[in-house]
Amino acid sequence: MEENLLLLTSDEARLRREKVQRLMRDNGVEALLVSDNANVLYLCGRVYAGFAYVPAEGDITWFVRRPVGLTGEKVCYIRKPEDIPGALAQAGILSPSRLALECDIVPYNMARRLEALFPDARMVDGTSLLRDARAVKTPFEIERMRLSGLKHEAVYRKIPGLYLTGMTDHELQVEIERVSRLEGCLGVFRISGQSMEIFMGNIICGDNADAPTPYDFAMGGAGLDPSLPVGACGEEIKDGTTVMVDLNGDFTGYMTDMTRVFSVGEIPQLARDAHQCAIDICRMFECEAKPGVEAKVLYQAAADMAESRGLHRWFMGHRQHAGFIGHGLGIEINEMPVIAPRSRCILEENNTIALEPKFVIPHVGAVGIENTYRITPTGAVSLTNAPEEIIPLL
Amino acid sequence: MEENLLLLTSDEARLRREKVQRLMRDNGVEALLVSDNANVLYLCGRVYAGFAYVPAEGDITWFVRRPVGLTGEKVCYIRKPEDIPGALAQAGILSPSRLALECDIVPYNMARRLEALFPDARMVDGTSLLRDARAVKTPFEIERMRLSGLKHEAVYRKIPGLYLTGMTDHELQVEIERVSRLEGCLGVFRISGQSMEIFMGNIICGDNADAPTPYDFAMGGAGLDPSLPVGACGEEIKDGTTVMVDLNGDFTGYMTDMTRVFSVGEIPQLARDAHQCAIDICRMFECEAKPGVEAKVLYQAAADMAESRGLHRWFMGHRQHAGFIGHGLGIEINEMPVIAPRSRCILEENNTIALEPKFVIPHVGAVGIENTYRITPTGAVSLTNAPEEIIPLL
Repeated sequence: MEENLLLLTSDEARLRREKVQRLMRDNGVEALLVSDNANVLYLCGRVYAGFAYVPAEGDITWFVRRPVGLTGEKVCYIRKPEDIPGALAQAGILSPSRLALECDIVPYNMARRLEALFPDARMVDGTSLLRDARAVKTPFEIERMRLSGLKHEAVYRKIPGLYLTGMTDHELQVEIERVSRLEGCLGVFRISGQSMEIFMGNIICGDNADAPTPYDFAMGGAGLDPSLPVGACGEEIKDGTTVMVDLNGDFTGYMTDMTRVFSVGEIPQLARDAHQCAIDICRMFECEAKPGVEAKVLYQAAADMAESRGLHRWFMGHRQHAGFIGHGLGIEINEMPVIAPRSRCILEENNTIALEPKFVIPHVGAVGIENTYRITPTGAVSLTNAPEEIIPLL
Repeated sequence: MEENLLLLTSDEARLRREKVQRLMRDNGVEALLVSDNANVLYLCGRVYAGFAYVPAEGDITWFVRRPVGLTGEKVCYIRKPEDIPGALAQAGILSPSRLALECDIVPYNMARRLEALFPDARMVDGTSLLRDARAVKTPFEIERMRLSGLKHEAVYRKIPGLYLTGMTDHELQVEIERVSRLEGCLGVFRISGQSMEIFMGNIICGDNADAPTPYDFAMGGAGLDPSLPVGACGEEIKDGTTVMVDLNGDFTGYMTDMTRVFSVGEIPQLARDAHQCAIDICRMFECEAKPGVEAKVLYQAAADMAESRGLHRWFMGHRQHAGFIGHGLGIEINEMPVIAPRSRCILEENNTIALEPKFVIPHVGAVGIENTYRITPTGAVSLTNAPEEIIPLL
């Protein structure tokens, strides 16, 4: 009935902890109190309700509220956050003078409540250092992503067999969701912050690609209901349009992001040219995206390729444009680095980045591709290898 | 290409706004700055990225960042929150001296950033007054929930036809998800706060019902992966066990919550007795849950029924117990009131409450039911009317 809290090997857990602790010391942070599910998962390999107390040196103390039955070194059950200071004192851990919280994530009231537990500490923001630590993946994390990519690819290869003439975008999406779930997709689309909501990703067909959304996703769609205004809208997939599939690739707790395009009937040359431009941008990225390269330089190189082919009007949207073409990902879909015009990120080895050069061609639909890449010394290597060309349905 | 921001009738929008404004005045709040998707949806009938500035009297100003193309009275596009004070001044709106934010929801950094926009204002917490306003539904909201309930019921009626001998819990869940999505389920399970994560709800079979989870849900399950440790675990559904289905009922932006139980082979009398106790608790609730009744009294009445039948060991869990048997719901799954031992809630007419008396019987599985109720002067009326008895599969 009991189970070890730590689900990572001790080497893997140490690698992650020491990466965080190095950034803590660089930023003069003595202790970090973590409660966000994604960050907790990063540190111990599982989600639990509670807190991880990370000192700048030494072991993490795991404060658990739920589930019952977790054991291991420095696992301490608490009923409420107010139990933490006493438990730390009992363990001989001195109260920190600079305590970091996840200030971009933790709600205001909870942050104030946690701050009050350490009246002698100055509270600082630890969100960025956790983001920076997580931006560079360990070999184990990359292996998880590689496995997600393989399953993601297996799902996408089945898409042509799921389409029937007369289907709506929603009906096709449901059949792809089913295949994906049977392949082991966990379904949940983990996004940092509460402002972006999505179900299992998007299928965007024809004119619906040009419906602007409230969310900071690269592509639009009106959705089925104004409570979730993104993606498939329930309209029949029409002849002469494209079907863009950008569905959840979380099969292992680490997700890949992949977009592919299908066509129904004949589509105009403009759409084919724009799709080829997206493929060429990915080829460029595979060569150029190396450690030390500035993210904004890569964005500009991609935008220049679209511009030089006369495709800038449709690049990353038409009525509404996305402000980026790539984003880090792993446990969450919006990690560091960001490939955007004013990004300050500089690429590092073992960043994992989804690059999604896309175009919206009015009355035809969305074209372009998205791959998830691992950054290596010799360039970007794709973890998502489904065929990239536009695949005709039927 | 343009669309009115307000998707509610002006009467409905006024009803909701005035309910919030009455609570604001009762609490001495001069203005309320809303950004949470669920609260924005409540006020205008759609999700957009931005803020709603609600004065204690008069019209709401809608500050929109995305999507492009929204029009209507007092719709004002902004690039960033810092644009808000200038736009208010231009509209002749005086800076408030007491400004409420959603302090239980908005991250610490964003709350501080918003606070800085109004240097002369005292910041107070507006989370509770929004929760209280949303706890009592308008007739229109109840109609949305009734429609969700009808579709939810249609999906559950199809479950026996989806089961095949030898299926895993996950495989059965995927087939139910598909039917639900084809019926129009939006999929997203809206939960206030980021700590509870779930995909489309849970199917819990046999011993997996007794696996404790980190989340504050009534029932458990180990899940497929430690990154999402809840619900189906991928094991074959065994003879002599129960299958508890508690899946997403969001078909309209307003969700119903409904749980039903199915059996494979013969299950022991204890499980049948516990299931009957849950049904009887619901019958009791239907009579007793009237405006003015204390939530904690209803909890106690339910717990007493389980106790008097010798079922308390298994009531609301076995290894880990949930601390409530019912919760308000609507746009989100965790609204007010809460039916729990120390709840201070007093029921009001047109509260909508999911009551979920459940039991975990070791080696058999979970039994019990969940219905979504509307509180009326004569008692609780169910919006979820699928058959309540344990239904044999095959």
